[in-house]
Amino acid sequence: MRHSLKALPLKPPLGAELPQHVKTLLEELVAFQSVSSDSDLWEESLKCAHFLHDVLADLGANVRLFQPLPDKRPLVVARLGRDPNKKTLVVYGHYDVQPASIDDGWQSEPFVLEERDGYLYGRGATDDKGPIASTLVAVEELRSEGELPLNFIFLYEGEEESGSRGFREAVTQAKDWIGDNTPIIGVLVMDNYWLGDDRPCLSYGLRGIASMEVEVRGPKQDLHSGVLGGVVVEPMTDLMSLMARLVDNQGHVLIPGFYDDVRPLSWEEESLYEDIVFDPDALAESLGVKRLGTDKTKELLLRRWREPTLSLHGIEGAFSGKGSKTVIPSKVIGKVSMRLVPEQDPEKVADLFSQHIQQEFSKLKSPNKLVVRTLGTGEWWLGDLSNPLFRLSAEAIEDVWGLSPLYTREGGSIPIVPFMEQIFDAPVILLPVGQSSDNAHSQDERIRLLNLTNSVKVQKLFYQKLARS
Amino acid sequence: MRHSLKALPLKPPLGAELPQHVKTLLEELVAFQSVSSDSDLWEESLKCAHFLHDVLADLGANVRLFQPLPDKRPLVVARLGRDPNKKTLVVYGHYDVQPASIDDGWQSEPFVLEERDGYLYGRGATDDKGPIASTLVAVEELRSEGELPLNFIFLYEGEEESGSRGFREAVTQAKDWIGDNTPIIGVLVMDNYWLGDDRPCLSYGLRGIASMEVEVRGPKQDLHSGVLGGVVVEPMTDLMSLMARLVDNQGHVLIPGFYDDVRPLSWEEESLYEDIVFDPDALAESLGVKRLGTDKTKELLLRRWREPTLSLHGIEGAFSGKGSKTVIPSKVIGKVSMRLVPEQDPEKVADLFSQHIQQEFSKLKSPNKLVVRTLGTGEWWLGDLSNPLFRLSAEAIEDVWGLSPLYTREGGSIPIVPFMEQIFDAPVILLPVGQSSDNAHSQDERIRLLNLTNSVKVQKLFYQKLARS
Repeated sequence: MRHSLKALPLKPPLGAELPQHVKTLLEELVAFQSVSSDSDLWEESLKCAHFLHDVLADLGANVRLFQPLPDKRPLVVARLGRDPNKKTLVVYGHYDVQPASIDDGWQSEPFVLEERDGYLYGRGATDDKGPIASTLVAVEELRSEGELPLNFIFLYEGEEESGSRGFREAVTQAKDWIGDNTPIIGVLVMDNYWLGDDRPCLSYGLRGIASMEVEVRGPKQDLHSGVLGGVVVEPMTDLMSLMARLVDNQGHVLIPGFYDDVRPLSWEEESLYEDIVFDPDALAESLGVKRLGTDKTKELLLRRWREPTLSLHGIEGAFSGKGSKTVIPSKVIGKVSMRLVPEQDPEKVADLFSQHIQQEFSKLKSPNKLVVRTLGTGEWWLGDLSNPLFRLSAEAIEDVWGLSPLYTREGGSIPIVPFMEQIFDAPVILLPVGQSSDNAHSQDERIRLLNLTNSVKVQKLFYQKLARS
Repeated sequence: MRHSLKALPLKPPLGAELPQHVKTLLEELVAFQSVSSDSDLWEESLKCAHFLHDVLADLGANVRLFQPLPDKRPLVVARLGRDPNKKTLVVYGHYDVQPASIDDGWQSEPFVLEERDGYLYGRGATDDKGPIASTLVAVEELRSEGELPLNFIFLYEGEEESGSRGFREAVTQAKDWIGDNTPIIGVLVMDNYWLGDDRPCLSYGLRGIASMEVEVRGPKQDLHSGVLGGVVVEPMTDLMSLMARLVDNQGHVLIPGFYDDVRPLSWEEESLYEDIVFDPDALAESLGVKRLGTDKTKELLLRRWREPTLSLHGIEGAFSGKGSKTVIPSKVIGKVSMRLVPEQDPEKVADLFSQHIQQEFSKLKSPNKLVVRTLGTGEWWLGDLSNPLFRLSAEAIEDVWGLSPLYTREGGSIPIVPFMEQIFDAPVILLPVGQSSDNAHSQDERIRLLNLTNSVKVQKLFYQKLARS
C-alpha cells in the first residue's frame, strides 16, 4: 500500500480542518516502529522512510534516500523548488524513535496514536514525528494556497536516537545531488521542546554527548550462584564497583579532568538567565520528586543547559526481570552517557572516561576482562542570537501565540547541528514544537494538539517572512 | 491430550531400551515451560503438574494436587503402596525451572530436548526434570518386574526455583491426606549435582539463602537524560552506590555482623576435606576464567560449601537491551542473594542486610525513596553421615558405577530440606544425578544420558536394599 497525503483534502480550509489533517498524518507516522537502536525493527524504519519519500514526492519534491552505510537507516532527502529567485531553507527532523513497549507502563499502545484531553499520545509524538508532520502540513497548505515562498531542502534522518550514525556521510553525498542553485539562508531544526508548558521558545544551545559501554567479562557462561558463588570473581561485583566510581549522588562527576575544559560562566552569559521565570518546585512536583538537585531557578537552568552531567542508564547481560534469578551473569555491560558543554571535546572526554575506568579496574585486581567502548559522541552547539532567523521566527510566534518566545538552551543533544552549520555554511535555529511535559524518551510520550496546529501556523508565517526579508 | 507412560513399553527390557524410555519421558517434561518466576507462564506449570499427576496415576498411585495458596504452583503428591509390612520412603523433586530463552545464547531451543554427543540438552534436563524422570522410570521398571519393595510418597513441587513458596503449607495439608500407615524411614531428595564430572557423589550439606531486593524510586516516570540530566537525583546513581557497598571483589561481604554466627571450622570437619581430589585449575579452565578466587583445593571447597557469599544478580527497571537508551530510569530494583551456612539465621541476616542498606542510603542524603524487600529465605542443612541411608545408597552406587561415592556438600540451597527432615521426622539424603558441568541455571543446561540411565539403576538397587535392611 502506498501511503499518501492525497487521502487528505488537497486544499484543507484553515482552522477547523487543520487538527484532523495533521493528526491523520502523525497517526500514520507513529504506526511505524522505527526504533533505530533495535536491529529487529530494521524493516519498520525502511517502511517509515519510504512513507516519507512518498509524502514528499506528492508535495512535488524530488526525493531520494541516501544510505551510504549498509546497516544504517536511510536519510530521506527532498528538494522542493529550484527557483533561483527564491531563498533556500533546509529543514531537519528525524523519523526514528526511542524503544517503547506497553509493558514499560504506557497507558495505551505506544505505536497507536491515541487522543486524550487535547493531547496525542504515542512514541514519537513529540520526538520527532509530530514536528515532522507539522512541517509537511504547513508546506502542503502553502502550496495549495498558491506559490511556495521558499525553496526547501528536507532532511529526515533515521538514526538520530542512535547518535546519527551515517548522517555525515549521507549529507555529504546528498550535497552533490542537491546542487547549489541558490545559497542556503538557514537550517531549521525541528527537534526539541519548550522549557515549560505555557510559553513558546526558541533555542540557541545544545549539550554534546558521549555514550559509553563498560563491559566486564568473566566465565564463558552464566553460573549458578549457589554452586559457584564465592569461588569465581563475579563480573557484576566488578561492574557495580566501577559504576559507583563515576558520579556521586550530588551529580558531581568523579572522572579526573572531566571539568577542565568547561567554559567559565561570564557575567554577560549569567545575566541571560536572570529574566527567565521558571519554578523549580513546580518542576519537582510535575516529576513527582521530593526535591531536585537544587531549588534555585538560575542554578537549575545552568545545570540543565551549560553544565556537563553523567547518567547511569542500565546493565545489559544481567537479570532484569521480576522476581529473583540466582545466577552469576558471565558478561555484563554498563550503559553510561555524558552530556557535554562548551568547550569540552567529546572524544577527549570519552578518553578520560576510559582511562578512569581502566585505572579503577586495575585497582580491583580482577581476573575478569574489561572493555570500554565509545558508542557515539556528539558536539555541543551555541547559536548566534543576533541572526535574522531568530528575529523572524520570534515575530511569527508572537503573531500566532500572542506571546513572545523565551530564549532557551537545551540539555539534550542533537549531535549533527554543529555539523550542518558547517556543511551548509548557514546558521541553525531550533524551533521547538512540544511542551516540557511531553515525556520524550519516556512512557506516555505525547504532544498537545494545539502545539501541533500552531506549529503549522508559525511555520507558514515564518517561511513567508523569510521570503520577504 | 492426556500424556502417559502407557505410550511407552509397559515392561521395557532392561539395558538397550532404557535410554529411550527415560529420554522420551524427559522430552515430554522439558517441553513444559514451567518457569516459576514468570507469571505469564502460569499455565505451563499447571500443565506440567497435570502431566505428572497422570504419569503417577498410571503407575498405580493415588495422586492429588495441593495448592493452599492461590497464586502458587501446585505440589503434586502421590501415595504409591500402603502395605503396613513395607517401609515408606519420601522422594522429592521439583518440576519448575529457571527462565530460559534461545536469545540468552543457547545452541538449541531450551524447551525442546535435543541429544548431542551423549548428552540431552534442555532447560530442566539436570535441574530437576531429569532426576524426576529417572525416579519414575525406576519405579515403573520395579513395578513391571514384580512387587514394589517399598511404599512411596512422591512430592513434586512447582516453586523450588522461587524459594519454594507455599511448599510448607502444601506439605502440611498433604500430611493429613497421606496418613501414617507406616513410619517414614527417609526422605530422598533428587535435586543436586556431582562435585565434578567423573565421580558419583552423596551430599550431606546445603547452604541457606536469603534473596533480597533493593528498590530506589525517584521521579514518577522515566526521564530524558538530556533534558533533565543534572537536575534530578537519579535513582540509578543511588542504587549503584548501594550495590557497590555490599561485597568487595575478593568476595568479602561488607555487611556489619554478617559473619558473626558462622560456625568456626573444627579440626574434624577440616579433615573431611583433605581426601577430596579436586583440581581448581581444571574448574577455572572449564569455566573459562583466568583464575578463581583461590587456587587451593581445600580453600575452594570451603568457599563453595561452608562459607557464606553474596551475589549481585541484576537490576530491574533500568535499560537492559543492546545499544544505548539515554533515559533516566525512574524506579530501579537491585537483585541480590546471599548463601548462608551453619549457624547463620536467614531472617537475621536479611535484617542485617536491610539495616546496612538503610544506613548507607541515609549517608547519600537522597530525596529518592528506598524500599528493601526480602523475596525469600531458606535454612542451611547438615545431614548425618552415620545414617544407614548413606551406607545403602553408597553400596548401590558402587554396584552400578564401580566407584565409591564422594561425600560432598552443596553450595546451593534447597530451603525445604531441613523442613522435610522436621515434618516427616526422618533423615534426608541427597542423591545427585547430573555432573558439575551440566550448566544448571545457565545456557545449554544438559544431562549425560549415562547418568540418567545409571540413576534409574542406582535407585532400583537402593530401594531393594532399603527394603531388605
